[in-house]
Amino acid sequence: MIDVCLLGTGGTMPLPQRALTALCVRCCGKSLLVDCGEGTQVQLRRAGLSMHDIDAILITHLHADHISGLPGLLLSMAKSERKERVMMIVPPGGTFVVRSLCVISANLPFEVAVTELRSAHEEFTLAGLRVTAQLADHSVTCYAYSFALPRPGRFNPQKASLLGVDVKDWKTLQRGESITAGGKKITPDMVIGAPRKGLKLAYCTDTRPTAELVALAKNADLLVCEGMYAEEDKLPMAKKKKHMLFSEAARLAAKAGARELWLTHFSPSLDNPAQYESCVRVLFEHTIIPEDLQKTELNFEK
Amino acid sequence: MIDVCLLGTGGTMPLPQRALTALCVRCCGKSLLVDCGEGTQVQLRRAGLSMHDIDAILITHLHADHISGLPGLLLSMAKSERKERVMMIVPPGGTFVVRSLCVISANLPFEVAVTELRSAHEEFTLAGLRVTAQLADHSVTCYAYSFALPRPGRFNPQKASLLGVDVKDWKTLQRGESITAGGKKITPDMVIGAPRKGLKLAYCTDTRPTAELVALAKNADLLVCEGMYAEEDKLPMAKKKKHMLFSEAARLAAKAGARELWLTHFSPSLDNPAQYESCVRVLFEHTIIPEDLQKTELNFEK
Repeated sequence: MIDVCLLGTGGTMPLPQRALTALCVRCCGKSLLVDCGEGTQVQLRRAGLSMHDIDAILITHLHADHISGLPGLLLSMAKSERKERVMMIVPPGGTFVVRSLCVISANLPFEVAVTELRSAHEEFTLAGLRVTAQLADHSVTCYAYSFALPRPGRFNPQKASLLGVDVKDWKTLQRGESITAGGKKITPDMVIGAPRKGLKLAYCTDTRPTAELVALAKNADLLVCEGMYAEEDKLPMAKKKKHMLFSEAARLAAKAGARELWLTHFSPSLDNPAQYESCVRVLFEHTIIPEDLQKTELNFEK
Repeated sequence: MIDVCLLGTGGTMPLPQRALTALCVRCCGKSLLVDCGEGTQVQLRRAGLSMHDIDAILITHLHADHISGLPGLLLSMAKSERKERVMMIVPPGGTFVVRSLCVISANLPFEVAVTELRSAHEEFTLAGLRVTAQLADHSVTCYAYSFALPRPGRFNPQKASLLGVDVKDWKTLQRGESITAGGKKITPDMVIGAPRKGLKLAYCTDTRPTAELVALAKNADLLVCEGMYAEEDKLPMAKKKKHMLFSEAARLAAKAGARELWLTHFSPSLDNPAQYESCVRVLFEHTIIPEDLQKTELNFEK
């Protein structure tokens, strides 16, 4: 299960009625935070999510609305008795920015281990999730992320029994390790079926739509994607500022074969994004215009 | 008239129900902001106060809860088409901190002119107000501020008439300049009485009570003062962390002969500061436990 909370839906600046876009992803008892603008720590509190337990913070890009809340968050994590290292994944140049911002959060009781992304496409594991970082197309270097939870094939007790595997060895095989039964080596593939469909979440902001992002969001159970502007006549502005229209995000979701799309990172000038929901659904039926703190659980298929 | 808005009442970290302490002071069509924690720009919006028109930002000290909102605020001021220079008054070392935080708000369309306080007691004029910066007693170098609006004496039209002053010259005399009437020099003191009681606002956070702060708040119409802890048994903690109890702030207000006291900078652990109001009023009758966005106008006496 992947537990998702979209902490805010705003872009550019925090507003009384709309917090800045950031995402909390929880899996296997650990949590990841993607982006941390001014007020993100307050939204974590509003959502009832623990700051103490954030395993890693991933930053899409180094614009203030995506990182300005970092020193305050780290200080609040310190107040919550956090002692363990906090991982950070940042775009190139991020180490300098993190260190600069942290002049007001010095002497933290934990290490902040910053890793800069270097390639256009990187894959790594965090909090039990397979994370992919994909270079996006924004006015500064910006990464989109996907989070995948693979699901192994089904264990076949009949086969295991026929092969003479003791019940106490089932867990070892399920972990992917071989055992010996009746003098014979038993490998996991002998008792476990083909991998089943796992879970996938993708987060794309701030960016123009690209083929690489379609690939990143391929068959995602949930795509959280920026939609800075709703009106079609804002296309020149969207192109200039390297953002997306609602319709462009919807087409990206459709091309990727995503199961559901949540739009986010609304322009402060966009008063009522929800009024555009029906228009966008013509392009991609399963579009949600979320509220701040929108939550969901992604679960394996039955 | 001085227009005062206490933007938040919290200390240490922003909470869903309590923003960080910061003060907006408006006078003569200009405004000053004292402190700028995470979320202060949102509180300015909530209060309906213009970010565009902030003449100067004064920082009490360089702890995150008093300055972390600066880069976001400056960016929002830039979005509001601000072009004029923004003055900043900061404690020693503040220039480095401001420059470090502003790595995420580079290329502003206005100059940020930072002045570091150097002495324990400094006086200067900002937005038509006589500002006093007084070194406080906190765990890091911290300044308290007072803002005074002097009120000249009453103009005496009878005297002016007897001296043969033309009505068109009244304004010149009221501005403090001399004129000539009937070949004789007329100085302002010849037609204007002794200065009348002006207005004074004092802002003291974060600090222990000191004699210098009593002097700073002397006869203030309003003293906005930190009260980190309400319970008397928190005195050792208050001394250790260099903060005040409610009772200490009340005694400071009484000693200073302030007209009204607003407590602020409540500890996140303090759930309901208002329940202590009656206790504090035993020590200083005109104590208010304000809400975020508490406003008042200080007006000259009739």
